[in-house]
Amino acid sequence: MFSLNIIVSLALFAHVSSAYIEDRVETLEKEISGLRSSLKDGQDRLDKLTTALSATKCGFDTTENNCKIAFHAHLSTSIANVEPWKSIVFDTVVTNHGNAYSGTTGIFTAPRPGVYAFYVHILGSNRVMEVTLRKNDHNLVLLYSQGTGHYGSDDNMAVVDLAEGDRVCVLNHGDNGVAPYYVHKWFSTFTGYMLYPL
Amino acid sequence: MFSLNIIVSLALFAHVSSAYIEDRVETLEKEISGLRSSLKDGQDRLDKLTTALSATKCGFDTTENNCKIAFHAHLSTSIANVEPWKSIVFDTVVTNHGNAYSGTTGIFTAPRPGVYAFYVHILGSNRVMEVTLRKNDHNLVLLYSQGTGHYGSDDNMAVVDLAEGDRVCVLNHGDNGVAPYYVHKWFSTFTGYMLYPL
Amino acid sequence: MFSLNIIVSLALFAHVSSAYIEDRVETLEKEISGLRSSLKDGQDRLDKLTTALSATKCGFDTTENNCKIAFHAHLSTSIANVEPWKSIVFDTVVTNHGNAYSGTTGIFTAPRPGVYAFYVHILGSNRVMEVTLRKNDHNLVLLYSQGTGHYGSDDNMAVVDLAEGDRVCVLNHGDNGVAPYYVHKWFSTFTGYMLYPL
Repeated sequence: MFSLNIIVSLALFAHVSSAYIEDRVETLEKEISGLRSSLKDGQDRLDKLTTALSATKCGFDTTENNCKIAFHAHLSTSIANVEPWKSIVFDTVVTNHGNAYSGTTGIFTAPRPGVYAFYVHILGSNRVMEVTLRKNDHNLVLLYSQGTGHYGSDDNMAVVDLAEGDRVCVLNHGDNGVAPYYVHKWFSTFTGYMLYPL
Repeated sequence: MFSLNIIVSLALFAHVSSAYIEDRVETLEKEISGLRSSLKDGQDRLDKLTTALSATKCGFDTTENNCKIAFHAHLSTSIANVEPWKSIVFDTVVTNHGNAYSGTTGIFTAPRPGVYAFYVHILGSNRVMEVTLRKNDHNLVLLYSQGTGHYGSDDNMAVVDLAEGDRVCVLNHGDNGVAPYYVHKWFSTFTGYMLYPL
Repeated sequence: MFSLNIIVSLALFAHVSSAYIEDRVETLEKEISGLRSSLKDGQDRLDKLTTALSATKCGFDTTENNCKIAFHAHLSTSIANVEPWKSIVFDTVVTNHGNAYSGTTGIFTAPRPGVYAFYVHILGSNRVMEVTLRKNDHNLVLLYSQGTGHYGSDDNMAVVDLAEGDRVCVLNHGDNGVAPYYVHKWFSTFTGYMLYPL
C-alpha cells in the first residue's frame, strides 16, 4: 500500500500540474493573439506613414540629401561688353548646396526632377539691355534695363519644372538693345532653389 | 505487479513530461514579455515620429499631394490700356502645380491653409504706373514703374498667410499714374508658391 | 481493484493531457518566432524611415515648429533721410512665423541653422541711392535706385546659410549716392524665409 500511495500522489500531482500549465498556455495564447493584433496595427501605421510621406514636399523617398538644392552667386567683376546671346557667368558663388550651379559656366544643371525657383537681378548701364533667363533652349522670363543716369536695373523670377539634367542660365537676350552691353559687378545676382521634388 | 509497473511508469512519465513543458511555458512567458516590451518601444517611436512630422514644414498629415503648390505665368500679349483697378491677367501659364492659379481670371485661390510667397514683375511704359499685389480686398505690396526711354519696370514680393479660398491677384492700382496704363508682354510675370502648410 | 482503475485513468489522462498541451506549446513557440521576426521587420522599417527623414528638407528631427520661419514687412511711413549705414526698419510686420524678424530694429535673427532666402525692394527718389542686404557685417547683395521722375526702385535677392544667431538686415549703403536718401512707404518691403534646416 505504500507504493500505491506514491503512485496515486504522483498521478494526482501530474493531473493538477497539467491543469495549471494548461491555464498558463491559455493565457499565453491570448497574449500572443493580442501582440499579433498590436503588431498589425503598428505595421498599418508604418504603411500609412510611408505613403503619406511620399506625397509631401519634403523630399522623402530620396537618397541622401539631394533635395537640399540652393545656390546664390554674383558677379565679381563688371563685364564691359557681353556679346549677344552669351551667358552671363556669375562667378562669385556664395551658396551652392547640391553643387548644381557652376561658377565657371554660369549654368545650373538640375541634379534631380523637381520644381525650382530662379531669380536674376541685373544692373546694366543707361543703354537698353535685355536679358533672358533660359531653360535649355527657350526663354523663361525676360529682363529689361535702361538707367536714367549711369546705371539701370531689372530683375525677374520664374518657377519651373525641371527634369534631371535640364539646364538654366542667364543670357544677354541677343541684340535687343544698344551695345555695348554692360553688367555691373556685385549688384548683378543669380539665385535658385528647389521648391520640392517631383 | 505488471500493471502496477505500467502505472508507475505512466505516472512518472506524465510527471517528467509536465515539468519539461512547464520549462518551455516559462520560456515562452519570458519571450512574450520581451516582445511586448519591444512592441511598446516601436509604438512609442511611431508616436514620436508622427508628432515630429506634424511639426515639420513638409506637408505631412495632408491628403494627397496638396502641398505641392506652385505657379508661374506671364503675359502673352501686351495690354495697351489696363483700366484702373482691373486685374492683369497673366495668361501664359508655364507652371501650375495644384491648379490654384487661373490663366483666365489672373486669380490665385489658395487650395489649403498655408504660408505662400508671391512675386510680380511688370514692364510698363515711360508713364508712371502703379500696380498692387492683393490678398482678397487689401494691398499686400505695391509696384511703381516709370521708364526713362520706352519702357520701365518694377517688381515686388510678399510672403503671406492664406486661409483656404483666399484670393491673390495683381491689379492696376487705381488711377495713381498717367493713363493709358501699358503692360508689356513676356517681361511681365506673376509667380507664387506655398512655403509650408498651416 | 477499484482504486487501481482510478489511478490508471488518472495517469493516462495526465499523459494524454500533457501531450495535448505540448502541441499547443509548440504552436506558441512557432508563433512567437514569427512575431519576433515581424517585429524585427517593423523596427528595421522604422530605422530606415527615421534615417531617410533626417536627410529631407522638411525640418524633421527638430523640436516644435521651428522650421516654419517666414516674415514679410513694409514701411509704414516714408523716411525722408536715411543716414549713411543706418538700418532701414520695415516696421509694418505682416507675416512673422517664428518671430525671428523685429519690426523695431529691422533685424532678422536666425533662430536655427538653415538656408534662408531674403528679398528686399526699395522705392527711392530720383537721386542715386544704394542699399545693402547684410549678413552680420558683410554685404550679401546691393541695390541701386535712381528714378527718372519722382521715384525710382530696385530690389535684390539672396539665398544664404545662416548659423543660429546670424543677423540679416537692410542698410543704406554708406554715402554711395546723393543725399538725402529717401525711402518710400508701402512700396519698400523686406521678406525672408527658411528654405530648409541645416
